[in-house]
Amino acid sequence: MDEKTKILLSEENLPAFWYNIVADLPAPPPPALHPATGKPIAPSDLAVLFPPALIDQEVSVQRDIPIPEEVRALYRLWRPTPLYRAWRWEKALQTPARIYYKYEGVSPAGSHKPNTAVAQAFYNRQAGVRRLTTETGAGQWGSALALACNFFGLECQVFMVRVSYDQKPYRRGLMETYGAEVVASPSLRTQAGQQVLAKDPNCQGSLGIAISEAVEVAAADPNTNYALGSVLNHVLLHQTVIGLEALEQMSIVGDEPDIVVACTGGGSNFAGIAFPYLGRMLRGGRTVEVRAVEPAACPSLTKGRYTYDFGDTAHRTPLLKMHTLGSSFVPPGIHAGGLRYHGMAPLVSHVLALNLIQAEAVPQLDAFAAGVEFARAEGIVPAPEANHAIAGARRAALQCREEGRSRAILFNLCGHGHFDMQAYIDYAAGRLQNFDYPEEEIAMALAALPAVAGD
Amino acid sequence: MDEKTKILLSEENLPAFWYNIVADLPAPPPPALHPATGKPIAPSDLAVLFPPALIDQEVSVQRDIPIPEEVRALYRLWRPTPLYRAWRWEKALQTPARIYYKYEGVSPAGSHKPNTAVAQAFYNRQAGVRRLTTETGAGQWGSALALACNFFGLECQVFMVRVSYDQKPYRRGLMETYGAEVVASPSLRTQAGQQVLAKDPNCQGSLGIAISEAVEVAAADPNTNYALGSVLNHVLLHQTVIGLEALEQMSIVGDEPDIVVACTGGGSNFAGIAFPYLGRMLRGGRTVEVRAVEPAACPSLTKGRYTYDFGDTAHRTPLLKMHTLGSSFVPPGIHAGGLRYHGMAPLVSHVLALNLIQAEAVPQLDAFAAGVEFARAEGIVPAPEANHAIAGARRAALQCREEGRSRAILFNLCGHGHFDMQAYIDYAAGRLQNFDYPEEEIAMALAALPAVAGD
Repeated sequence: MDEKTKILLSEENLPAFWYNIVADLPAPPPPALHPATGKPIAPSDLAVLFPPALIDQEVSVQRDIPIPEEVRALYRLWRPTPLYRAWRWEKALQTPARIYYKYEGVSPAGSHKPNTAVAQAFYNRQAGVRRLTTETGAGQWGSALALACNFFGLECQVFMVRVSYDQKPYRRGLMETYGAEVVASPSLRTQAGQQVLAKDPNCQGSLGIAISEAVEVAAADPNTNYALGSVLNHVLLHQTVIGLEALEQMSIVGDEPDIVVACTGGGSNFAGIAFPYLGRMLRGGRTVEVRAVEPAACPSLTKGRYTYDFGDTAHRTPLLKMHTLGSSFVPPGIHAGGLRYHGMAPLVSHVLALNLIQAEAVPQLDAFAAGVEFARAEGIVPAPEANHAIAGARRAALQCREEGRSRAILFNLCGHGHFDMQAYIDYAAGRLQNFDYPEEEIAMALAALPAVAGD
Repeated sequence: MDEKTKILLSEENLPAFWYNIVADLPAPPPPALHPATGKPIAPSDLAVLFPPALIDQEVSVQRDIPIPEEVRALYRLWRPTPLYRAWRWEKALQTPARIYYKYEGVSPAGSHKPNTAVAQAFYNRQAGVRRLTTETGAGQWGSALALACNFFGLECQVFMVRVSYDQKPYRRGLMETYGAEVVASPSLRTQAGQQVLAKDPNCQGSLGIAISEAVEVAAADPNTNYALGSVLNHVLLHQTVIGLEALEQMSIVGDEPDIVVACTGGGSNFAGIAFPYLGRMLRGGRTVEVRAVEPAACPSLTKGRYTYDFGDTAHRTPLLKMHTLGSSFVPPGIHAGGLRYHGMAPLVSHVLALNLIQAEAVPQLDAFAAGVEFARAEGIVPAPEANHAIAGARRAALQCREEGRSRAILFNLCGHGHFDMQAYIDYAAGRLQNFDYPEEEIAMALAALPAVAGD
């Protein structure tokens, strides 16, 4: 076995295709439904928001979907990303496990998000769209889309949740440096925003409101489309470059993961690393244990109901079958903003329902403890979201120690934490807490779910 | 010629030796002098601050100095760093020049500084030292040393200039995450700090004061040594891994730089990329034009005097022969904190005096304009310091366009700007300025220089 720290791929080995897991699943995922009719939506229902190529990908059953050369050329600015062997962390954990991590923090925006942002901007540009609009919480997705729009000469408008807009100016600065327009949400630009502000002029905003604003703008302007950073099939598809590269890199090392771990918020970085491994298993290849790690304060996979729900709080999206805590549930203010989502990608929910993956939840303080331990061993300070994957990998490694088994663990380190140092400062000062499991709020939100035929 | 975007080296090609330019220079650099006697200092004069191995390196005339295996093992966490071809920026500039950049922002601390921090921590650990103390301005050096000390189980104490300590908590958070103790300077921990605070209890601090505090602590405690992030010969030596890798990578591409560009503050990232190329030329190899780019507000190479001066404001260091604006000169508050130094590394000053390199100055607004243009073309948002190198490379590229010459330009992108977004926000808002050349202050500071025999 190789003794390298970083396993690199050259650009010639950048994947030429994305991997679509739908082609290999034993059962197709349940379709999205139109909220008015309760019937499956037609691809044309999405045309007001997305370009034809992305709608095709959303419903495709083709296994390998070619990555356009223009997208691959931009991927080359940071891809293939390195795969690391965590020699120093293994030693710190005194585990016989072999731990590997794929590091997506080397992208210009510092996370995996540009993998799909660049693809979405390309297809929109191709369709003659002039502007993309989106929402962002802490700003990881917004900065990725700002970067991508800039590359393709598209205007970019980002509705940023007001509380983050005021408290996290650095990510906003990054978006503006890439030329994007950043609007604090709720805003007066949309009816959705105006309605909220009429009731509460000091409203701090939420991801749900910001989505409603972005969707409203895109629906009203034929030159403007909407872009989403997770959840949808085409977004998960674009992220599979992560796992496809990892397959190649592990084979260079001459090792294979027994366990694959990633954090889950909307599900895209998880699908990115896990789906290519699941696909290989589904096609009769090597068995792999896949673990999704979510925050205990927002436990859609471990405590949610698998049912039809809206993707947003304002109920403007189609109904998606997913593990959900109820679209009216507002998750507690954990620092891993990217994991604060009431639902889960329908494809990730589907593979959980098929028992192809496992899910576990990690409290905030455990995630940060694991992240700090990892940073001291490996140097890289992870994003708070990634700390959940690290905590999951740590559990698996300690299990190996208890059992005296040397298994191989691969996890996705989806981003660096250089924009999130306030969270680390708060953690060190004892100002972070574990939220009690919000049982009552979730029960209420689940009770408020829409009744859907065929549920 | 290769058409890759990133030219990668595998870990087997990590340099095994640092390159010491002193071995190839036509004249030896002038020695450091003891301020009391005006005589060259003896290596033993430094023993209170530095371990024997680093003192040996400081005065070594050996060309190739082996990199300890323990240091190479840690370098592998981020090295070899990628070399990029700036295809998209070349196109934006409409230049026939071929532009390459070495990217040091992939280190865990986000800059080139860990190249020397890891080496310094190793040698101190080897010598039985238990703690390192240092100063930091904005925190780039402090965070690199915190990372390195953590790797070797050394305690780390960082005197951080008070104004940055209060205004830039993110870098402080990074240092503390790595386990370092960060002390706002001036502090009550030292006599130097106490004296300053007695006169001005609200003093915002300066790099000069912070150096005095760190040196005082190290001199008083046999278990504590001092570490410096630039200027000294051994620091520049450690950074030559940058240029040594670049030599290898350019030869993989089948191209050679005609012009090498880097920014200069204390001189270490500049020396890191330039010295291996200068050395090849000095040994009869390919001719190369080397350009040092400094801020117009702190122009030690272009406007300073080449003479003996103190390295710090409080006059506790040996006298170094260097291009200096006078050790009592306090540079204007430009955002490129790493370039706000009154002097220059003696070795960089020496090669300028030998006419082996050229120097040029760039106003702050030009540096940021170049940095934003670069970020939009290449994706990476550079550190404000690196923007000076980018502005220098841009000048060279536009010169090529005017002359219709396709020359190859290589510059060092010494760090990313994710910790520096406030500077970009201020730039975008029109709140940054070009400082008038501080002619009078510099004249006063130069007039106050110590009189030294043999100057």
